[in-house]
This record gives sequence, structure tokens and C-alpha cells, in this order.
Amino acid sequence: MEGVDHLAHERSKAQFDVDELKIVWAGSRHEFEVSDRIARLVASDPVFRKDNRTMLARKDLFKNTLRKAAHAWKRIIELRLTEEEAKKLRFFVDEPSFTDLHWGMFVPAIQGQGTDEQQDKWLPLAYKMQIIGCYAQTELGHGSNVQGLETTATFDPQADEFIINSPTLTSSKWWPGGLGKISTHAVVYARLITDGQDHGVHGFIVQLRSLDDHLPLPDITVGDIGMKFGSGAYNSMDNGVLRFDHVRIPRDQMLMRVSQVTREGKYVQSNVPRQLVYGTMVFVRKAIVLDASCALSRAVCIATRYSAVRRQFGSQNDGVETQVIDYKTQQNRLFPLLASAYAFRFVGEWLSWLYTDVTQRLQAKDFSTLPEAHACTAGLKSLTTSATADAIEECRKLCGGHGYLSSSGLPELFAVYVPACTYEGDNVVLHLQVARFLMKTVSQLVSGKKPVGTTSYLGRVEHLMQSQPKVQKAEDWLQPNVVVEVFEARATRMSVACAQNLNKFPNQEDGFSELSADLVEASVAHCQLIVVSKFLEKLQQDIPGKGVKEQLQSLCYIYALSLIHKHLGDFVATGCITPKQASLANEQLRSLYSKVRPNAVALVDAFNYTDHFLSSVLGRYDGNVYQNLYDEAWKDPLNESVVPDGYQEYIRPLLKQQLRNARL
Amino acid sequence: MEGVDHLAHERSKAQFDVDELKIVWAGSRHEFEVSDRIARLVASDPVFRKDNRTMLARKDLFKNTLRKAAHAWKRIIELRLTEEEAKKLRFFVDEPSFTDLHWGMFVPAIQGQGTDEQQDKWLPLAYKMQIIGCYAQTELGHGSNVQGLETTATFDPQADEFIINSPTLTSSKWWPGGLGKISTHAVVYARLITDGQDHGVHGFIVQLRSLDDHLPLPDITVGDIGMKFGSGAYNSMDNGVLRFDHVRIPRDQMLMRVSQVTREGKYVQSNVPRQLVYGTMVFVRKAIVLDASCALSRAVCIATRYSAVRRQFGSQNDGVETQVIDYKTQQNRLFPLLASAYAFRFVGEWLSWLYTDVTQRLQAKDFSTLPEAHACTAGLKSLTTSATADAIEECRKLCGGHGYLSSSGLPELFAVYVPACTYEGDNVVLHLQVARFLMKTVSQLVSGKKPVGTTSYLGRVEHLMQSQPKVQKAEDWLQPNVVVEVFEARATRMSVACAQNLNKFPNQEDGFSELSADLVEASVAHCQLIVVSKFLEKLQQDIPGKGVKEQLQSLCYIYALSLIHKHLGDFVATGCITPKQASLANEQLRSLYSKVRPNAVALVDAFNYTDHFLSSVLGRYDGNVYQNLYDEAWKDPLNESVVPDGYQEYIRPLLKQQLRNARL
Repeated sequence: MEGVDHLAHERSKAQFDVDELKIVWAGSRHEFEVSDRIARLVASDPVFRKDNRTMLARKDLFKNTLRKAAHAWKRIIELRLTEEEAKKLRFFVDEPSFTDLHWGMFVPAIQGQGTDEQQDKWLPLAYKMQIIGCYAQTELGHGSNVQGLETTATFDPQADEFIINSPTLTSSKWWPGGLGKISTHAVVYARLITDGQDHGVHGFIVQLRSLDDHLPLPDITVGDIGMKFGSGAYNSMDNGVLRFDHVRIPRDQMLMRVSQVTREGKYVQSNVPRQLVYGTMVFVRKAIVLDASCALSRAVCIATRYSAVRRQFGSQNDGVETQVIDYKTQQNRLFPLLASAYAFRFVGEWLSWLYTDVTQRLQAKDFSTLPEAHACTAGLKSLTTSATADAIEECRKLCGGHGYLSSSGLPELFAVYVPACTYEGDNVVLHLQVARFLMKTVSQLVSGKKPVGTTSYLGRVEHLMQSQPKVQKAEDWLQPNVVVEVFEARATRMSVACAQNLNKFPNQEDGFSELSADLVEASVAHCQLIVVSKFLEKLQQDIPGKGVKEQLQSLCYIYALSLIHKHLGDFVATGCITPKQASLANEQLRSLYSKVRPNAVALVDAFNYTDHFLSSVLGRYDGNVYQNLYDEAWKDPLNESVVPDGYQEYIRPLLKQQLRNARL
Repeated sequence: MEGVDHLAHERSKAQFDVDELKIVWAGSRHEFEVSDRIARLVASDPVFRKDNRTMLARKDLFKNTLRKAAHAWKRIIELRLTEEEAKKLRFFVDEPSFTDLHWGMFVPAIQGQGTDEQQDKWLPLAYKMQIIGCYAQTELGHGSNVQGLETTATFDPQADEFIINSPTLTSSKWWPGGLGKISTHAVVYARLITDGQDHGVHGFIVQLRSLDDHLPLPDITVGDIGMKFGSGAYNSMDNGVLRFDHVRIPRDQMLMRVSQVTREGKYVQSNVPRQLVYGTMVFVRKAIVLDASCALSRAVCIATRYSAVRRQFGSQNDGVETQVIDYKTQQNRLFPLLASAYAFRFVGEWLSWLYTDVTQRLQAKDFSTLPEAHACTAGLKSLTTSATADAIEECRKLCGGHGYLSSSGLPELFAVYVPACTYEGDNVVLHLQVARFLMKTVSQLVSGKKPVGTTSYLGRVEHLMQSQPKVQKAEDWLQPNVVVEVFEARATRMSVACAQNLNKFPNQEDGFSELSADLVEASVAHCQLIVVSKFLEKLQQDIPGKGVKEQLQSLCYIYALSLIHKHLGDFVATGCITPKQASLANEQLRSLYSKVRPNAVALVDAFNYTDHFLSSVLGRYDGNVYQNLYDEAWKDPLNESVVPDGYQEYIRPLLKQQLRNARL
């Protein structure tokens, strides 16, 4: 049945033009075209094959990753790809490697924290990959608390050098990607000490390995930290450990844009505003939110297509069983995730706008919106990555037993994705930061300070504390203002309740600690409101394409109403909605599922993922699942011989009752 | 610092005798002693080392598993272990292998479904492992729906043989553990066809491989289905694919206890009650619930110990950071899981009693309690395995970044555990079975039929539909009758609401399908009530040991009150509790966390797990985490050479700008 589209019937049912939705998903026709071209380029190149990744032992996997990275760079040069295209090429190669950190952390750190001279010296080398860099911040004993780092950089005025040192075991750098085996250089974060005084954590460019023979430089101990979650997955990355035994570097390798150490050893702050770091944070977190929508949409694409192929129970007259996607329990788990993929995509798009806005304000020295922008990106990073990690695993379960096979692609997608919940800020720590900002905002309301941006709804606190939605029948839930106000009311009431409870504590910090679980929930409520609002705002925009807008509307309400159901306790206990209204929301949700059902496969086709990128037998575009599962199985190394290695030594003696004398 | 107990201070704070709790956890002094002895035996045997498992390529991993299985059997014979001890030894070896299916499925299938003659013929061979068997039910296209299996067993009266055949690709047997490479025999489930008539699915003993050279017998295609989730994990198991091309077996290899095919080809049912299968189901699911408590307690043990070792932020006067376990957000995530581990243990114990009860009734031909027992075990299997899978991943996240390392033990524990949500009944399918039983029970209330066992509370429906808990202050939540009645009221109201909504549908099956998501939630409410009740009943028993009872009481209320918080929407929307009472429950929960905090490490010590069994650097008994993480890292194959394989081919040309001419 080569070439037959097993999902053709599903696709014929779609009530909208999938090509038009592809462009909405991609963001623009240009984005779509570049992505489409580069994705095909990668998919058609045999060096970039991914299907054998989970079968490779660590060393083979790693070596193959080096090959892909070199080949990618070669193609980038040969084809004279633009920076945008090169980035997309790395994205579609889809294998964690040292280049992620080189381009994503090392280069930006120098761009953001280096002086002009430092940039002139180091960036040309980095741009040509004549040096390869990583970002060495986290230590064995110190992750979230950056101010607690132990590595020291002590200035020696006599030699005009810094002495980089790892004074304790727990000060060993631990986790930096690309560090373990590949990077020649690192931006190392260490406590700056001049004249016995500790100036806190600063960044330093340190060469780690010889450019001649790749051996670690003297007094540097460096290696890989070992296997991580899953097979394949992040094991293609050489996350590393690094220790310094009084390693000397020239003074001009401290990144000196924001503060400097002079020739005399004096510590001086420049007039560059420290708030600049926030710009970078917004940038990084925007990228993480877009990554979340990407990972989630991959998982949803696999689960949706397979749910349309798989049949089980409920044989009809014709003896054919029911498609799994027709079960309400399946829809109730799957469609909110499909909706979340779109929701996260659009909130990520909005964060791109926010980043531009923040950058422009920074240039104009307007720092007024920074704290709000910072809180908002921290919260959205936390919300979207946690939801995505859970959703990938849920999609795996939605594929039943076959989702447990590596060839389904879902185990590796999960294993490779989950670190997003921890890196760039642990998700709970981030929610607490958001909550702190919310508490401050609430406490300043009495003094008449107007909340800005995503918190501006708190300015209507009096109204929101007692507002009641006008919902008397299920369809009443399909009004943007009703939905937004219900989410605003819930977020407001949870924040205000926290603020009131905090006030009962004589010591605010004790209260903050005691009530931290409630505070996290208040932050979640605030962040969900943002996502819902931005999705609804997107629908206000001019969305081209026949039927596309209707589909997105359905998904938007599915996202919002499924959240109401999931967090029903919040909504009902705060009196934002009545139990009767909750039950109407559920009713409306079920009828939205029926509307989405015929469009489900087309809605995931709109992501435009190649079979190469999805790397999933269950998620194949043509739906030819069973034949390919069967064929894939025989490629496992265990099937290289009919009788397995070990039979003679261990199984035959067992069967023949000759174990007693066997040497095992 | 070899030999220093980094957690000694934690242990000194415990307010109870941990040795006494160990016995409560184990179930009896005898159970404790056997487990303790066997666990040490395994831990001290170098053949059983587990720490390198995630680094091995599939073939090496598999071969090593065969070695362990043979060695385990050798030790069982040499030490003349009892059946109980042998079972524990396999448990502590803790590596999925073909022996699990041989002892856990193949042997019981013959015991349960074979005639006396069949048992006499096959069991002695199986008991000595002269044959190795597996359980071949699931097919590529058929999992949950056993009645949809396609494999056929057609009786040929001329030859007095069955012809076993795989008529389609989707009829290929797919998933059976031990099938891929090792089993010599299988119990194969196939549609019995005599004289053109289909009698549904029956079991047949089929030889798969030659006992001489282990080659598959003629017309049998068999192999491994490939890599599964994670590294190590379930990849030590040879889950298999199997196809028959008209394979003939003698008539007496159909398992004939319940129904037979005579020499003449007549299909007859014996007078053995078909309900006997339910006994086996209760037995298997009881074991799964106890496995859940085991997997969960392992994860909780690791996360608890590491949370007491790890410090981050909040440096006190002495400059030492705060232990992570002292954060309320950590407690709020961790302690409910600790409580769940105990809750699942005790409900598993109760299921052991239920199994005895069911067996006795079956022998007395009393089938009256069977449907209730069946629904109850189905629901508890579903509830505990889903909760455990989620909890293991939550424990991993509670260990921050280091939880992502294989050496933390948590990634492999997760990967090896999650299939429990799918095998022996998909968890959603099982909840729907429970819901069907609940709906039936509710509908029969009007006719005056008294609900039995775990559903007997439904007999008080009128009271429970309007009962209100007498809770006016936080401590009021510490009353067993208050808590149970609140859970009963919630479960009752959710079931009754479903039943009422079902009645609105002209066709009950359409209604059941449309409302299935609500029905699953009603089942969850019912099952959580069972777990809470059984935990409270356990506390009524005579629990020896100073302070032990108080600890278990705290955990029991943590379990119940954290569920109220998690499912707040259920409780408040049904009017079972008021928002004010919900907030008092939260307040009580926080004060219980403070009570558990000083005992936390001792509460996980009570599981009595060896470091070998835990196989986690983060969960080490001595808490010496950092040194061991550091030492462990260097054992990764990537660290065998300082300069990695691939440097010369891929990295050097990259750095030296010589890629253009390179052959990649």
C-alpha cells in the first residue's frame, strides 16, 4: 500500500483551508516558506537521519552528533545560508548539541556583556567557529541561586590577571552543555574578588582546551557528567563538569560592559544600565515559550493522527471498530492539548512583540514596564513548559501501549523536553517571583499606583471582586468578554486573598514562605489569564482564510473552558462562577469537541511537520502505522541474530538443568 | 568522609521508632525479616549490580539480564530458597526479564485454565524451567479489546489438531514480554473455530522454539519489537512480535478447564464457573497496587533524602543555605506523595484480604460480591498506577536538575514504571468499567437493592446528598468520620449527577459515551474514597510502636486533605464543603506538614530499601550526594578518552576552517 494516504478520508472532512492555517501558524508567508524549504532540505539529507538515534550507545550517538554538527555547518557555508536560515537548519536537525550553547548562550553573553573591544576580539572567532564556546554558570551545589556560586576570580594586580579557582567540590561547574567534550572556551561565572573584597558574580572568558590538540589546558579538569533521561534524547549533548585549580587569565577577559576592574585593581561600575540583562531574559524566555508550542504541537500531531488510525471496541454493523479519536474520553484529553499548542504559539508571538517593545524602551531609558515584562515572561515560561512536559506524556499515554515504543517518537520527545521545566529558572521559583510582583502590585493599589501591561486588570479590583458572568446557557460561554472577565476575576480574587492572608503575618517573609503554595497558584491563575487574553486578541486580528478563524475560535474556547474545568475549585470557591455555570461550561466544551473532531487531522497538518522532523511511526503523515511499526521492529540490534547472544552461556544451561556447574 | 552519615542529624529528630514502622510497612515481622535478608543477599552479590545499566547498548544490556536471570535461578537452587524467598529475590534483582512473565503469567495461566491432566503435564516442566513460557494475548491492532483479537485456532478433526494462524498484519502478536528472544512456549490467545463456527477467544499452549537449538519452529516468525522508553528500564525485556503461518498443535494443547473441544470437534462448556477468572484478576491487580506503593515509595525516598541534603537560597546567619525540604512549596508537593506511598501500601494490604475473601466465596460458589470486588480492584489499579507514574516524575522534578541524571535513578524508575498505566487494562477503560458498575448500583437503589462492600455508602444516598461536615476550625478536619463522610458525599453526588444526566439521553449507550469524561471523574472520586477509608481503618488497628501511630495519622490526613485541595472543584461545586471549610483544610494541611517535617527522613527510612535497590546517588542512605555524583560522572563511556572520538574527523576541521574539503 505504498503511497496510499490512510488519512485521506480524515483530511477530506476538514472545513477550512489547511494551507492558509499553515501560514497563520508559521507567523507569516515568509516564515512559512523559509521553514518549509529548510525542513525539506534537512529531511532529504541522509546524514541527518534520526530514526536510529535511540539504538545507539552513548559514544556512537555522540560521535554521530558531531558529524551532524559539522555537516550542518558545511551546508550552511556551501549554500550561503542567512543567519535566519542557518538557525532554522539547526532547529530542524533536531539534535541537542554543543552548537546550541555556542550560538544560544556563548555568543549572546559576549554580545550582551562584552565591551566593544571584547566583542571585536571574540565575536569574529566565534562567528566562524574558530573557537567553540559554552556558558558555565551552574555548579554542583548551586543552581537556582546564582548569587550563591562559589567559583572565585581573584584579581592579582601584580600580574594583571584573574585567578580562577574552584575552592570546594560543590563549586565544580556542573551541567553546562557543550562543556564536557567539545568547547574550547567558556564564559565562566565566578565571584569577583579584588583586594579581599567580594563583588559578587561576574562573567569571564576562559579558554579550556588547546586549539592544537584539544587537550584541557593545565590545571583544568573537565569531563562529561554522564547519562541523562532517556535513550537518545539529551545524551547527544556533552553536559560537563569543570574544575579550576588556580587558572590564570588576562584581566581583559572579564566581561566588562557593566562593571570593570581597572589596571590598578579598582572595581568600577559603568554607566550602562544593569536593567539591560532583563532584555536578554525576555528574549530567552520568549524563545522557550515558542519551543514549548513546538514540542507540544509535535506530540499532539502524533497523538491526533494515531488516534484517527487506531480503532478499538465498539464494532459497528460493518465489523470495523471505532476510531479512538471518536471517544469523548480521548477528545477530552487530546483536544485541550491541541488547543494549548495554538495558545502557546500565539502567546509566544505576542512575547516577540513584547521583546521589541522592551528593547525600544530600554534604548529610550524607559524602565517603567520592565518589572511587569519580567514577571510576565517568567510566569509564561513556567506555565508553558510545565504544561508542555505533562502534555507530551499525556499524548504518549493517548497512544496506548504503542506510545511506549521508541519508534513512536514520544518517549524521546518527553525526555528531551523536560529539562525546560528546570533550566533558565526552576518553574516553582519563577512562579514565586511572579507572585511577589503580584503582591507588590496589589499592595500598591491603595496608594493609587496604576498597574501596567498584563496586570492592568488589577486596576479594576473592586469590580472584579464581585463581578458575575452573565452565563445562563451553554452558548453564553462563547463571548470573549465573559471569558476574559471570569479569568480576571479568578486571578484578582486569588491574589487579593493571598495579600490579605499575608497581612496576618507579623513578618512578611514568614508569611510569604508559609503561604508559598497559595502564591504559586495565584501566579498560575494570572498567567493562564494572559494566555487566554492573547489568544482572544489574536482572534480580533485579521485572520485570512476560509474557515480558519472559526477553527481557531473553537480552539480558543476549548483552551479557556477546559482550564475552568481543570481549576474548578479556584473558580467556584472564589465565587467567580456558580456550579451551574461550571456545568454549562462543560456542556459547551463537549459541543466544541464535536466541532473540532472533523477538523482534527487538518489542524495538526497545519504545523507542516515533515515525517523526518516528527520521527514517529505513529505520527506518519500517511497514517500507514502498522506496516511501519512492524518493519521498524526488525531493525533493532537484538534482531541481528535469531538466537540471541547469551543463549549458549545462560539460557541453554538453564533449560538443560546444567546451571549448577555453570560459570556465570 | 567515607562512612559519615550526612543525614544523621535528620534521623536524630525523628519522634518515633523507625524499626517499628519498618515492620508495619512490611506487613509483619516475618515479611520484614525475609525481605531484609533477601535484599541484602542481592545487594552484596556483584553479578546483580545495577549502576551501569543505563550505559549499556541494548544487546549488552540484554545479555547481562540473561546472566542475572540464570544466576538468580542458580542461587535459588543452591540456597534452597522457598517460593516466597525466590519471588523476593527476583523482586530485589529489580530488572525486567522473561522470568517475570514465565512465573507471573505463563504458569498462572496453566494453573487457572488448564485441566488437571494439562497441569500435570506442563507445570513440572515449567517449575524446573525446562521450558520457558510467555503470555501471548495482545496483537498489533488489538489491545484493550480482547474480544477483537484476530489470531485463529481452527480445529482440524481429521488430524485432531488446531491450526494456529495469523491472518492479517494486525493479528501479529505484539508486546508479550519474554516472547522476542527467549520463550520456548507461549499461551497463545486465539479465536477458536470449529466447523466454521467462531467460539471467541481461548488459550492454547504453543511451542515456539526448538529445545535443541532455540531456533523458531517451522512457520513461526518471531522477534523483538525494538527499543522502548528510556535507557536501561524495560529494554532488558524482549517484548516480542509473533506470526503463525498455519502452525499445527495437538488438540490437547487447548487450555480446557472451562471449555473443551472433543475428539469429534464438538465445542462444550464445562461446569467450572466462568467467574473463576475474576479471582485471577483480583490477584493480579492486588499485586499491581502493591507494586505502585513500592515504586512510589522508592521515588519518595530518593526525593525526601535529597531534599534534606540539598540547600538553596535563604542563607541564614551562619551563611549556610536553607535545606530544600524546609520550603513549603517543596513540602506541599512532596509530603502528599509520601502520604500516598503509605496509603497505597495499606489499600494493597486490604486487597490481599479481599483476594482471600473472594477466593473463599468462589469455593463456596458465592458469586454475590464478585462484581463489586471486580470494580473495586479495577478502579484501584487505575487510580494507584496513574498517581504513581505522575508522582515519580514529580519526585524527579523535586530533585531539580540533578534528577535528570540517570545516576539519580528517577528517569529509569519512571520509564520502567509507566507501562503499568496501560497493561492489565488501560486506566481510562478501567475507570469506565467502574463507572458502569456505579451507575448500575445507583439505578438499583430505587428498587431497594442494597449496595455491598466498597459501594455500601451509596445505601445512605439520601443522607449523603445533603450532609454537611461540622468543620468550623482547622482541627475539625482531624476527625475520621468527618473526612470519610465528606469523601462519601462527594462520590455519591458525582455518581448521582451522572446517573441523572444519563437519564436525559433517550439511548443510554449514547449518554454513556457523551458523558464518559464525567463518569471517569465519578469513578476517581469513588476510588479515592476507598483509599482514604482503608487508611483510616488501618489506624483503627492495633499499631505497635511508640509514636508510629501519630505519624501514620498525620500522613493519612495529609493524603485526604491534599486530595480535597486537588479536587476542590468536585467538593465545592457539589456543595459537600464550603469555600471557608476548604481554606481551613488547607490551613490544617500546612500544620500537618510541619508535624511531618522532622520525621520525613525516618518515614522513608522505614521502607528499608538498600542503596542497591534504590540505585540512586541522590537517594543514598548516607546522604553523601555530591562526592558520589562527581565520582559517578567519570564512569561514563564518553570519559574513557579525554579527547572524544570524532574530534579528528569533525571538530578539528571545523575549528581549522577546513570543512569544505572534508568528507563527512
